[in-house]
Amino acid sequence: MSDFPIPEIVAELRQVREQWRVQQGRTDTAQREFPSRDAVTQAIESLKGVLYPLRLGPTELRQSSEDFYIGHTLDTALQTLQDQARIELRYRARQDGDRDSEHSERAHELRAAKAVHEFARELPGLRKLLDVDVLAAFHGDPAAQSVDEVVLSYPGVLALIHHRIAHVLYRLELPLLARMVAELAHGQTGIDIHPGARIGAGCFIDHGTGVVVGETAVIGRNVRIYQAVTLGAKRFPRDAQGHLQKGWPRHPVVQDDVVIYAGATILGRITIGRGAVIGGNVWVTQDVPPQTHVSQTSPVEKVHPLPAAA
Amino acid sequence: MSDFPIPEIVAELRQVREQWRVQQGRTDTAQREFPSRDAVTQAIESLKGVLYPLRLGPTELRQSSEDFYIGHTLDTALQTLQDQARIELRYRARQDGDRDSEHSERAHELRAAKAVHEFARELPGLRKLLDVDVLAAFHGDPAAQSVDEVVLSYPGVLALIHHRIAHVLYRLELPLLARMVAELAHGQTGIDIHPGARIGAGCFIDHGTGVVVGETAVIGRNVRIYQAVTLGAKRFPRDAQGHLQKGWPRHPVVQDDVVIYAGATILGRITIGRGAVIGGNVWVTQDVPPQTHVSQTSPVEKVHPLPAAA
Amino acid sequence: MSDFPIPEIVAELRQVREQWRVQQGRTDTAQREFPSRDAVTQAIESLKGVLYPLRLGPTELRQSSEDFYIGHTLDTALQTLQDQARIELRYRARQDGDRDSEHSERAHELRAAKAVHEFARELPGLRKLLDVDVLAAFHGDPAAQSVDEVVLSYPGVLALIHHRIAHVLYRLELPLLARMVAELAHGQTGIDIHPGARIGAGCFIDHGTGVVVGETAVIGRNVRIYQAVTLGAKRFPRDAQGHLQKGWPRHPVVQDDVVIYAGATILGRITIGRGAVIGGNVWVTQDVPPQTHVSQTSPVEKVHPLPAAA
Amino acid sequence: MSDFPIPEIVAELRQVREQWRVQQGRTDTAQREFPSRDAVTQAIESLKGVLYPLRLGPTELRQSSEDFYIGHTLDTALQTLQDQARIELRYRARQDGDRDSEHSERAHELRAAKAVHEFARELPGLRKLLDVDVLAAFHGDPAAQSVDEVVLSYPGVLALIHHRIAHVLYRLELPLLARMVAELAHGQTGIDIHPGARIGAGCFIDHGTGVVVGETAVIGRNVRIYQAVTLGAKRFPRDAQGHLQKGWPRHPVVQDDVVIYAGATILGRITIGRGAVIGGNVWVTQDVPPQTHVSQTSPVEKVHPLPAAA
Amino acid sequence: MSDFPIPEIVAELRQVREQWRVQQGRTDTAQREFPSRDAVTQAIESLKGVLYPLRLGPTELRQSSEDFYIGHTLDTALQTLQDQARIELRYRARQDGDRDSEHSERAHELRAAKAVHEFARELPGLRKLLDVDVLAAFHGDPAAQSVDEVVLSYPGVLALIHHRIAHVLYRLELPLLARMVAELAHGQTGIDIHPGARIGAGCFIDHGTGVVVGETAVIGRNVRIYQAVTLGAKRFPRDAQGHLQKGWPRHPVVQDDVVIYAGATILGRITIGRGAVIGGNVWVTQDVPPQTHVSQTSPVEKVHPLPAAA
Amino acid sequence: MSDFPIPEIVAELRQVREQWRVQQGRTDTAQREFPSRDAVTQAIESLKGVLYPLRLGPTELRQSSEDFYIGHTLDTALQTLQDQARIELRYRARQDGDRDSEHSERAHELRAAKAVHEFARELPGLRKLLDVDVLAAFHGDPAAQSVDEVVLSYPGVLALIHHRIAHVLYRLELPLLARMVAELAHGQTGIDIHPGARIGAGCFIDHGTGVVVGETAVIGRNVRIYQAVTLGAKRFPRDAQGHLQKGWPRHPVVQDDVVIYAGATILGRITIGRGAVIGGNVWVTQDVPPQTHVSQTSPVEKVHPLPAAA
Repeated sequence: MSDFPIPEIVAELRQVREQWRVQQGRTDTAQREFPSRDAVTQAIESLKGVLYPLRLGPTELRQSSEDFYIGHTLDTALQTLQDQARIELRYRARQDGDRDSEHSERAHELRAAKAVHEFARELPGLRKLLDVDVLAAFHGDPAAQSVDEVVLSYPGVLALIHHRIAHVLYRLELPLLARMVAELAHGQTGIDIHPGARIGAGCFIDHGTGVVVGETAVIGRNVRIYQAVTLGAKRFPRDAQGHLQKGWPRHPVVQDDVVIYAGATILGRITIGRGAVIGGNVWVTQDVPPQTHVSQTSPVEKVHPLPAAA
Repeated sequence: MSDFPIPEIVAELRQVREQWRVQQGRTDTAQREFPSRDAVTQAIESLKGVLYPLRLGPTELRQSSEDFYIGHTLDTALQTLQDQARIELRYRARQDGDRDSEHSERAHELRAAKAVHEFARELPGLRKLLDVDVLAAFHGDPAAQSVDEVVLSYPGVLALIHHRIAHVLYRLELPLLARMVAELAHGQTGIDIHPGARIGAGCFIDHGTGVVVGETAVIGRNVRIYQAVTLGAKRFPRDAQGHLQKGWPRHPVVQDDVVIYAGATILGRITIGRGAVIGGNVWVTQDVPPQTHVSQTSPVEKVHPLPAAA
Repeated sequence: MSDFPIPEIVAELRQVREQWRVQQGRTDTAQREFPSRDAVTQAIESLKGVLYPLRLGPTELRQSSEDFYIGHTLDTALQTLQDQARIELRYRARQDGDRDSEHSERAHELRAAKAVHEFARELPGLRKLLDVDVLAAFHGDPAAQSVDEVVLSYPGVLALIHHRIAHVLYRLELPLLARMVAELAHGQTGIDIHPGARIGAGCFIDHGTGVVVGETAVIGRNVRIYQAVTLGAKRFPRDAQGHLQKGWPRHPVVQDDVVIYAGATILGRITIGRGAVIGGNVWVTQDVPPQTHVSQTSPVEKVHPLPAAA
Repeated sequence: MSDFPIPEIVAELRQVREQWRVQQGRTDTAQREFPSRDAVTQAIESLKGVLYPLRLGPTELRQSSEDFYIGHTLDTALQTLQDQARIELRYRARQDGDRDSEHSERAHELRAAKAVHEFARELPGLRKLLDVDVLAAFHGDPAAQSVDEVVLSYPGVLALIHHRIAHVLYRLELPLLARMVAELAHGQTGIDIHPGARIGAGCFIDHGTGVVVGETAVIGRNVRIYQAVTLGAKRFPRDAQGHLQKGWPRHPVVQDDVVIYAGATILGRITIGRGAVIGGNVWVTQDVPPQTHVSQTSPVEKVHPLPAAA
Repeated sequence: MSDFPIPEIVAELRQVREQWRVQQGRTDTAQREFPSRDAVTQAIESLKGVLYPLRLGPTELRQSSEDFYIGHTLDTALQTLQDQARIELRYRARQDGDRDSEHSERAHELRAAKAVHEFARELPGLRKLLDVDVLAAFHGDPAAQSVDEVVLSYPGVLALIHHRIAHVLYRLELPLLARMVAELAHGQTGIDIHPGARIGAGCFIDHGTGVVVGETAVIGRNVRIYQAVTLGAKRFPRDAQGHLQKGWPRHPVVQDDVVIYAGATILGRITIGRGAVIGGNVWVTQDVPPQTHVSQTSPVEKVHPLPAAA
Repeated sequence: MSDFPIPEIVAELRQVREQWRVQQGRTDTAQREFPSRDAVTQAIESLKGVLYPLRLGPTELRQSSEDFYIGHTLDTALQTLQDQARIELRYRARQDGDRDSEHSERAHELRAAKAVHEFARELPGLRKLLDVDVLAAFHGDPAAQSVDEVVLSYPGVLALIHHRIAHVLYRLELPLLARMVAELAHGQTGIDIHPGARIGAGCFIDHGTGVVVGETAVIGRNVRIYQAVTLGAKRFPRDAQGHLQKGWPRHPVVQDDVVIYAGATILGRITIGRGAVIGGNVWVTQDVPPQTHVSQTSPVEKVHPLPAAA
């Protein structure tokens, strides 16, 4: 079997990478390091076990020794997260033009430690929030047979566990880790919630595939969302240089007790008032008053007989 | 590196769990155990190899020794399934307020064994059904090059293998295992078929992402379904206590030879008559007669020139 | 615990397989072998590291020794790919009725080696293309914070890496491997791009779940596509025997600088002219002139108050 | 490639197994099950971490959360051990001709639980004993640089950890598990200590390869043993039926503070008195008084010049 | 962290390898390939399960489906072995100066297939032989409690399983594979039996560490051997060029029913007559008549009191 | 199943650990960390592949891309080693009473980097030395069929690869890592060479089980050693406080071209002169002149007939 021209291809690939680095202004030769998808995955899997030990932890776990499992697993997961947080902070500092130094390295370490401490302290609160989500799913789906089935197998609950973790990381200014946590859920469930979105307790996302919730969306309490719902932006204004303006509120505000049926598209910084019901496939770009129902006009469809041979 | 306040967080998490248990009326201290996602995954992966040994089994397998592989793999998979079935039955009995006893434990074992025996006996029939599905996909997709490509890489076929297994488990009154099997396919393909749905031979789901098929849906023979199609419920009536009524027929009946194009939404216990064609994105909430074609009215869209600077 | 009737089930399964083989005209007893999903997965994971070593390669990798990693990983991945290519060629030859022989086996080997050599030579070009895609995503998403975040976590970029690899395999007449590569991305991202589709540089697929791009679709440069967009076929004409006609151009041509918003459905061999904007949920089956904006007519929706008890 | 005659070989192997089963009087068709080497290995590895968490536990462990790790790991290890104990008890009962019944199964479970509880309660005492062994090694080897090096890398310490665990299992009448634990150390260190041997605190086995300590050997406190030392039996008397007599005291008693140099062979139920020193390669079959030194007579060896060409 | 001078070290290592290749006359640039330790390990582990399915196979195996497991595992193991055999044959042909060609490659394949077929046919006979070994161990060790304990945990039995497999490979002229199989046992048990040694049924090697049995040794039936026994060569005659003469009979012949106690050294092509007993540590270089006992002369050892301060 | 009294046992284990820490003067609460056996194992396995890429590297490796494999693997292995070196240096500094500080941490890092750089530079020399060892084994063993068999399967070569690596680490003042590397070989081969021993080129250790070579032993060029040979210390003098004196030359010096047969014991700082031959089982405690042969006096053994019934 003849050999591949490895050295030539390696050289060409190097050339392309160098072009990229020059183009991106990365002319230093310093070490570059990125958070690791594997490490983040492992930490999140552990945290799921910490939050729901009997249902999402190891199968051999027993109620009588849950706390040992939780303490050990939590410690390991937090250490991993702290490492990854430090890597993100260093990476972002370099992005902003900082030079590496022992001083800055120490600063990243301290900041990472502080952030992960704060993160850790929020976990009991997260579990409480998630319990409300679980109940919402149980009460909102006629097919649900028990709260445990919901935790074990509902993709919407999985997406919310990831989101609530990701959102804390986002608030703690670790947006890259937050995004990685969110994408792990997106890949598994088809539910794409930006970590920046603020979501109240008792959220139930049913089926979920194709749901998109944007960075600045705000969702109140007890909101129910079906598959393929988009809470998106309407326009992408650019600044004087023609670059997209980042960070301004551009996604909907959904108040408490709203239900949004499958395929509805809600765009822009509009408000869906408390208790409103948005029908399936509806396209909404303006405020909806509280306690109202938005639906398609009586669907005008043609029904005609098929030719015999079809 | 300073340490995390693990003991405090462990204590707070315990408190939240205890609140939940009290709230859910789980005041006993008995051992609680749930079916294991890993075990179910392993059993299903084995069963796929049992059903399609050369295509979905181990790469080194040879036709001449298929049966050895099948026999060994099947035995292992069924044992695993039986264990998980016993766990589900015990779990559900506790849900219903039964107390654990040697007697009930033995009863769960016998019932699990019986169910998995029946399940096993259905496997040859499942393979036969699935072969019809595979042919339907091959004949229904102009891009399909061989029946083997279809088995090896079509997500719709994967979803149906899972569904047909899950549906047998559902009929054998193992709804939690059934749901876990279904969700494994949902996560991988974006196709969400409730295990309760009844689907005839020769079903072809193309692309599939976003398809949702509800618990009481009935699908006839030779039905073709494209991505993002929903066969859903229209209303969620509640009983006197305000709880959702569970279990009544609330999803569509789709008769033989129907084609449903992408994005169509069909809601409620309506009937789509034999040979009907439902167009893309159409919203259907009433019966459709056989041999008819439902399509959007001529789409009224605005086409206007963009300003130069866009 | 009683035993399962394994031998009986094994015998019945064998019978069903034999029916299938007879029905499919597979009466030879020769060894049958299919490309391995695991092997393809491993090769693709390696190639991702080869293309983006610091971001998608192993975490301990350092810039100073990138080339060693790339050379070693590339060699291993190409060997794996060559094995799988040979298996596909042999499989396809048998499909076409060829008998195995030492001569044909040697021919498959040579052809596989040639194809994988050509594939390898295209890798630097692929990286260049993908860099343009990455920049397009960074500039096109207000939420994107860095080009690295885009490579690390955007599903659209993942789908394009897979697609660009799959498309080269498709052009080198390895359609089965190509399809397997594409389905790996489909499973993970919900983005279903047929390997045959031709996609220009600077493509950005945002969110992506539910996107479907057909086999003969052509996409120009700098095209932006949102979730749930379909570039599909309108009709599936059959030949005299009633079989689907395969291979003719049946999907849209999308010219440079087009934007297609979420949920739009574009069907048939039509052309979306340069710079056009297709609005969300729009249904398009006819040519769209350049620099025009297609949107839904002012959405006619009913908004009415809900009864108090809802 | 031609196929192997698998069915024929399988049939012949079955015949041989049946011969064996008939020959061993195993004519029942009941399920037979043996303790699992993998399960025992896993339990022992966990127990090593429980005993020496920072040195033999996971690398990321920190002193501040040791107890969580220990509690969780211990619980898992004890469950595994209890399962294996139950399997041994059932196996042994069948050996003794008992028939399986629900009653006996329950009895095995209770006995296994009781035994593993007692085992667990001895762990703190074991750690104390082993600390004395570690100190003995540190003080007895001029090459030892720290007590931690001793725990991390001395095969004699590894062998003693296994032995002390195995001996407790032996005393709790789980001889098969005990033997498996002992053989795991034998395989890794070349030190073969029968679980029945009684060994006092402060034992140091240096180098260790080839050491053999028999079932009824008794070793006092602060004994030092070098490689290839045998504490064996002298005779193997048989009973009237010509079968070996099992269980009677047939190995040496070694009192406190004895040193036994490399290669010494000590056979039979003799006593090596307190503080005695047994020289290298010496063969001892009679009692040695306390505080004496047994050495070879001045070695009579020929030293002669070699021919030039050697 | 500064980088390592990897390129320089890689270059120097290449230089050393090239020196070696020149020195060994390996100036071709052809592909060189060696049997894989991992592949051989895997095949042997499988074969152990094939020979003793319930005791050395997977823990979940049940008697009722043993044959399926055996057939599947055997087929896989034999394929692996055949691959490795082909690699050895090609390697050895190159050693002998053959050039690679399609013709020779085909010849190696055929020869490998033939050898592994013959190997496979011997497996039932091997199991029969090994059953006699197992009984010998059970009857020969007062500490043995059951035949199953012997199979599960006696290193001597493990070494004989490996040896009997290795010896068949050696006879089938696959000496390199044979040696690798033997070394796997040597590493795990400290028992070093050259694959060429011929060993009769009912062999029992107790404890075993340090046992060495040379290539041309012949051992009869029912022989018992203790730890550290050597059956070695006495002289290593060289040919005219000063190279060691290879292959001639140079190790002992041990007839039926012999017992050799620990540490005995037996050197040269001598015969230990039927039923003889060789005492511990004895050094034997001449024939021993049948039914005799060789022991050390009454051991002349000095026993003297130790000074008080020792 | 009742629960284990985990909390009580955890508390008792903590008490024992605290006793130990007090007893060892470890009253600080600082983080304690030890080199990781897993990390060292991984680094050494990689280095074996770096030294002998085709024979001990991954099976799919090809000569044409060896250098890529070596460069990548080497870089990873050296990083791992440097981490472990830093951990050892910090650990040892604490042992010596140093307090942790940023300053000392930085010093450990620099020293670790320097040591591992020096280590890396010695690798080509090590390979050269080892090639001589390989040839010595090939020429010294009549059963050896090729130099490749020697590298692939001779335990003596494995032990020397480990030793030569360990000795460099020992010289670079990383004794704990050195010891761990040595023990990995000891566990696998039964050959126990202290990393401090100095061993010349062309060393051949045959069979090897039970060989012990002490810390200050010196072995010349072309020395051949058989199984169970000890190069040990004769006395262990203690200082005024009764502690063993560490570090002084106490093991034999073996000059070039010496052969030492199985079981020979050579003790104390004596010299075995160039070309001497030490016979099997001989006990040597005094200098042996060059070119002489030391053997046992004609072995005085009793040979007497056995009684009929034995």
